[in-house]
Amino acid sequence: MTEKRLVYFLSDRTGITAEALGKSLLTQFDHIQFERHTLAFVDNPQRAAEALQQIRQGAQSSGQRPMVFSTLMQPELRAVFAAADVFWIDFFDTFIAPLELELNAKSSGAVGKSHAMSDAYQQRMDAVNFTLGHDDGLGQHLELADIILLGISRCGKTPTCLYLALQNGLRAANYPLTPDDFADAHLPAPLRPYQAKLFGLSISPERLAQIRQERQPDSDYASINTCRSELRQAEALFKKYGIAYLDITTMSIEEIAASILHQAGLRLQRMDRR
Amino acid sequence: MTEKRLVYFLSDRTGITAEALGKSLLTQFDHIQFERHTLAFVDNPQRAAEALQQIRQGAQSSGQRPMVFSTLMQPELRAVFAAADVFWIDFFDTFIAPLELELNAKSSGAVGKSHAMSDAYQQRMDAVNFTLGHDDGLGQHLELADIILLGISRCGKTPTCLYLALQNGLRAANYPLTPDDFADAHLPAPLRPYQAKLFGLSISPERLAQIRQERQPDSDYASINTCRSELRQAEALFKKYGIAYLDITTMSIEEIAASILHQAGLRLQRMDRR
Repeated sequence: MTEKRLVYFLSDRTGITAEALGKSLLTQFDHIQFERHTLAFVDNPQRAAEALQQIRQGAQSSGQRPMVFSTLMQPELRAVFAAADVFWIDFFDTFIAPLELELNAKSSGAVGKSHAMSDAYQQRMDAVNFTLGHDDGLGQHLELADIILLGISRCGKTPTCLYLALQNGLRAANYPLTPDDFADAHLPAPLRPYQAKLFGLSISPERLAQIRQERQPDSDYASINTCRSELRQAEALFKKYGIAYLDITTMSIEEIAASILHQAGLRLQRMDRR
Repeated sequence: MTEKRLVYFLSDRTGITAEALGKSLLTQFDHIQFERHTLAFVDNPQRAAEALQQIRQGAQSSGQRPMVFSTLMQPELRAVFAAADVFWIDFFDTFIAPLELELNAKSSGAVGKSHAMSDAYQQRMDAVNFTLGHDDGLGQHLELADIILLGISRCGKTPTCLYLALQNGLRAANYPLTPDDFADAHLPAPLRPYQAKLFGLSISPERLAQIRQERQPDSDYASINTCRSELRQAEALFKKYGIAYLDITTMSIEEIAASILHQAGLRLQRMDRR
């Protein structure tokens, strides 16, 4: 079965929510191929008409009924699509009415509030600056870090820290474990005052070797034996010091970040700071 | 009206989707205060029982019916919450059945697929590495950039680039416009071969002065006159060379990124590459 269905994520703002929920639903049908398009900033009747036109053209060339996941908030924009022959999933329409009943309040129907943030924005910017300045063992202010990720070279520390800073406003530092650190099997001295903030990252030796191979082909650094040995010693260190750690081999950045927040109990702390 | 309602985002995975849609819906009721908690990785009956216990305790202390936004996929886990006195919004249950009909297919009901990605993951990691190496005019490979953000100091280039790399897998470079560049009103020489990739960022002088003030208090750099003058000259340069640009003063990073993708038409390109 290899049919390819056209899917549109339709939004009066960025489309991020429509994409996120739509994609989650579609993963439930993983034997079907989907071609996805995002129609963002559809926030006036003319843009809505253009979006509808684009959807209709897609339908014509594909010969199948297009699927539309909508987070449009304005009823008059949703109405533009009412007569169209599309499979329509409407996140707002479905849930706003029961919410109004439960909260005994009218929805504002306003556009453009979904991602508005100010203090939180500034916090995220500060966190990004901190994280950029505390990558790979750099930086002198680990006492200000919310979390310090620990792991050997190329196990995902930097992108995870950036994600935690950008998305969660956490000051995330990271510190590389090197063969020197394994010689005496002690935690590196700069980290010792901050054990409560440490979180380890690990990965499978095979995947690590593959990643390192792309960086330094046919090096000792990228050999499976080196990878195995470094990973074994890093995990031994994590265990010796009671540092929680995570095997990220099959995880996306979102999952790594959410797992760290979950395990480290940081999510609440973050929300308290907002 | 200042009631405070307890809200739980319940998920068998990261909770990102439940949070995103739940928060979008709640912004429609902005005069009501919500206290939000994320219950992630609720992927077995014991975790479900614990989550229910936590929700019930919250209900008892708040004296109000808790609201639960669920993306739980497994019916037997959803069933744990069936008898609880909560206001229940179930994203999967609501939409999976109509989707099965439309697609004439059974949903896999499987857990843990929502954020699975492999090639896309690698693309994002590569993009992050590129972006870190091409921050603030650094880096020698602008020919490999998907986009180059242009703007004066402290107008949001770095975090926006990191977001585009992490979230969208785009190799996003950025290049600072300095007073030197304004002297002859020409585009800096290294950028001239890549005009099609350029995108400008601007901001209000007041906001910029505030941001710079935190960095270098009472400096000429942070004065409102300097900010006004630099912004005016930057925008003149954007106009002279026909470079699309964005005023980010009131935007979140998500909105900035989505607007750039929308205006630059990069979204499709990105999806094609996946």
